[in-house]
Amino acid sequence: MNKLPDIKTQFPEWYQEIIYQAELVDQSPVRGCMVIRPYGNAIWEEIKGILDQKIKESGAENAVFPLLIPESFLKKEADHVEGFAPELAVVTHAGGKKLDEPLVIRPTSETIIHHMFAQWIKSWRDLPLKINQWANVVRWEKRPRAFLRTTEFFWQEGHTAHATKEDAQKTTEQMLEVYRQIAQDYLAIPVQTGRKSEGEKFPGAEKTYTFEGFMPDARALQMGTSHLLSQSFAKAFDMQFQNKEGQLEYPWLTSWGSTTRLVGALVMTHGDQKGLVIPPAVAPIQVIIIPIYKTEEERTLVLNTAETLKKELEKTTRIKIDDDQQKTPGNKFFHWELRGVPIRIEIGPRDLKNNEVVIADRLGSKATVALGSVVGLIPTQLENLQKAMFDKAKQKTESLIIDKDTLEAIKAVAETNVIKTGFCGSRECEGVLKQYTLSIRCLLLEQLTHKNCFNCQKPSQSDCFIARSY
Amino acid sequence: MNKLPDIKTQFPEWYQEIIYQAELVDQSPVRGCMVIRPYGNAIWEEIKGILDQKIKESGAENAVFPLLIPESFLKKEADHVEGFAPELAVVTHAGGKKLDEPLVIRPTSETIIHHMFAQWIKSWRDLPLKINQWANVVRWEKRPRAFLRTTEFFWQEGHTAHATKEDAQKTTEQMLEVYRQIAQDYLAIPVQTGRKSEGEKFPGAEKTYTFEGFMPDARALQMGTSHLLSQSFAKAFDMQFQNKEGQLEYPWLTSWGSTTRLVGALVMTHGDQKGLVIPPAVAPIQVIIIPIYKTEEERTLVLNTAETLKKELEKTTRIKIDDDQQKTPGNKFFHWELRGVPIRIEIGPRDLKNNEVVIADRLGSKATVALGSVVGLIPTQLENLQKAMFDKAKQKTESLIIDKDTLEAIKAVAETNVIKTGFCGSRECEGVLKQYTLSIRCLLLEQLTHKNCFNCQKPSQSDCFIARSY
Repeated sequence: MNKLPDIKTQFPEWYQEIIYQAELVDQSPVRGCMVIRPYGNAIWEEIKGILDQKIKESGAENAVFPLLIPESFLKKEADHVEGFAPELAVVTHAGGKKLDEPLVIRPTSETIIHHMFAQWIKSWRDLPLKINQWANVVRWEKRPRAFLRTTEFFWQEGHTAHATKEDAQKTTEQMLEVYRQIAQDYLAIPVQTGRKSEGEKFPGAEKTYTFEGFMPDARALQMGTSHLLSQSFAKAFDMQFQNKEGQLEYPWLTSWGSTTRLVGALVMTHGDQKGLVIPPAVAPIQVIIIPIYKTEEERTLVLNTAETLKKELEKTTRIKIDDDQQKTPGNKFFHWELRGVPIRIEIGPRDLKNNEVVIADRLGSKATVALGSVVGLIPTQLENLQKAMFDKAKQKTESLIIDKDTLEAIKAVAETNVIKTGFCGSRECEGVLKQYTLSIRCLLLEQLTHKNCFNCQKPSQSDCFIARSY
Repeated sequence: MNKLPDIKTQFPEWYQEIIYQAELVDQSPVRGCMVIRPYGNAIWEEIKGILDQKIKESGAENAVFPLLIPESFLKKEADHVEGFAPELAVVTHAGGKKLDEPLVIRPTSETIIHHMFAQWIKSWRDLPLKINQWANVVRWEKRPRAFLRTTEFFWQEGHTAHATKEDAQKTTEQMLEVYRQIAQDYLAIPVQTGRKSEGEKFPGAEKTYTFEGFMPDARALQMGTSHLLSQSFAKAFDMQFQNKEGQLEYPWLTSWGSTTRLVGALVMTHGDQKGLVIPPAVAPIQVIIIPIYKTEEERTLVLNTAETLKKELEKTTRIKIDDDQQKTPGNKFFHWELRGVPIRIEIGPRDLKNNEVVIADRLGSKATVALGSVVGLIPTQLENLQKAMFDKAKQKTESLIIDKDTLEAIKAVAETNVIKTGFCGSRECEGVLKQYTLSIRCLLLEQLTHKNCFNCQKPSQSDCFIARSY
């Protein structure tokens, strides 16, 4: 195990090391694809569980659509195929033969799901139709980075159809709000929600909403999106319903997705020089008990207490005892700190004599507490830690944001800051950012604070955030 | 909605209709691939949840490996590539270019997982290593049938590595036992466990164990398998560990999988002329409440009671009220019977005056019971139904099995029976079955009851079941 690179001066290298050292992922023999190891997958399973429940509460139901999509389907919506064509993986041969029509591995499933919607939606009674899919998708990546940008990634994609534009708009915003909650209340990541500019929106959408996290290196991370697709896909896929008056209409569509990228966001937002720091709400192990002993007699005594504590605490808490006899307590402290477990309980024979144990949390606090109070304390302490991690991250994020009014001023600080500025809404002004590897991350929905566009200085349509991005 | 084909005389047609009418699946535009609709997926999610827990209890951890596998990996194990080559889907182009080496969509993941195992396993301390993956896999199917045999299907595949053959053998058997429990205790499907013959075992395995269900049309359905792979894959992938004595050894491997086929097994085993019959343990909706009313006043009264009952019962039961005002109660009875919901509660104003409700179960019993006793009754009734479904299925299955001693006798009854007979173990005797579209489904592990082989009449090595199969 090598020392982790300095998180302040070598953040990309730190990220690259920690995800391997903490055994979240491993390099796969297929370029751009991840092997997600059990600990990384356990974090993803926690996130999935929470998100799945909230999606079901929103009224959507899970279904499964084919991995493979006929190439011709992609071509039905002009903007859509233009956006995805360069990233497609194509199956040309199968079952020992050349296929009559190539099949692409889904880069996203609008086309095949809308093909099915066209058969399921006949009347206003069939609306709204709300479907969600947990799936793997493939987009060929030139510069892959584990969790952040991978050729194969894992996500949920929601797809809904509505009788009116208002209802579709409402669902688009409702799902964005679900995502905001997941990010802030569970991942403890402060995010900025807003709209995507014309240059950044989803190919084929009328409007794209996004939730963006600002990472410690001042790069923005798009953590997920919610699209108002409107009627263009409905028209492309011949999806019509009879309204209450008996006339045929095209339904209004939405789609919304979030991915394994959330794991990368969590790693970058909370990690420190010792390794991962995982918010209790999504930690696969919330509490690790480390028994400390020298003799076999002490071991029995200490493990007895550990087992009793675990039995009580596991009713409310994801808890584990590390009784590996190959490792010293010091090794175990290091091991679980690296993996970001929120709370460590140390139980040694001396503590037990005083009816005490030591509780250390991953943000650095340490205290000796009465054995009898542990079971009562832990749930509150996990809640407090969750809040403390959010507050700490919020402070970090806010310190990155800086207000600027001109392109020159923006360029001068863009290496170390996220910039808030005004924007006229034109493709031209957005376009000039590209040469500086900057982009508009989101247009704010709140009232204007900058009067003029950062580039043309004409009146601003909305405030926006500009940053480098993942 | 058409009438279902006669289940006795047109079983394949009945199956083909019921899975569409009950909205478990839909035809996809990609030949051989399924669209699994919300109700079908909800059943699969119930099965997955139970199986996932049992797999975790066995000590395996979930991980994720790439969908795409370099073609050269498949070729490393000679039997393996020979077995799977004709079924592969091949990606030849990606990111707008022809790939240097084609990638296949995983038909199963031994090769890529063993490639990773070779990097993770260094010492006896790393063993046993137990990994499970929930994934989609693709095998090009010539004669696809929804759930039973599809080009893309969904499964879990477990992969383990052990220091000794004994330990690997133990895990192979342990996982077969987990599968037997899932089938019998949750899906209420009586199964026969046993070994696969040489002609039927997994390409590359030393031994394959199977659990087979015998469907009402006397066809056997292989519901899942557990393989002792031994060392051939370890050798092919250069996987070695240092044993306690410091010497290098090849680990002993296993793999085991079960698929969305389990949903098909459930449909065929329990279905009747009215539609699906779903065992309570895996039913997404265990109890449906149908309110019956004519006036708005009655509606309020009846729905009040329904809501109160639901609130109490949902603590232990998956329950739903069908308050669709577009449908008559008769339509709703039909709708939920077709979907196999185990228990229906009918609440009408006349019943309420007597403080009673009507409880009808999917096996045909119906009773009027005191309102106050419903909450106490339902869990017991669900348990009894679960048992009754298993007993009924067991009786059906056992009536299909017939003992025969010669090939002629077997051929005469094979259209309508599953045959138990003796087998010498030779590839020749197994081979003669093919021309009659029969095969050896499994070799029994129990003591011999047939002394001679059904074909050569030489001494039998083990009893076996012979049947047509899915």
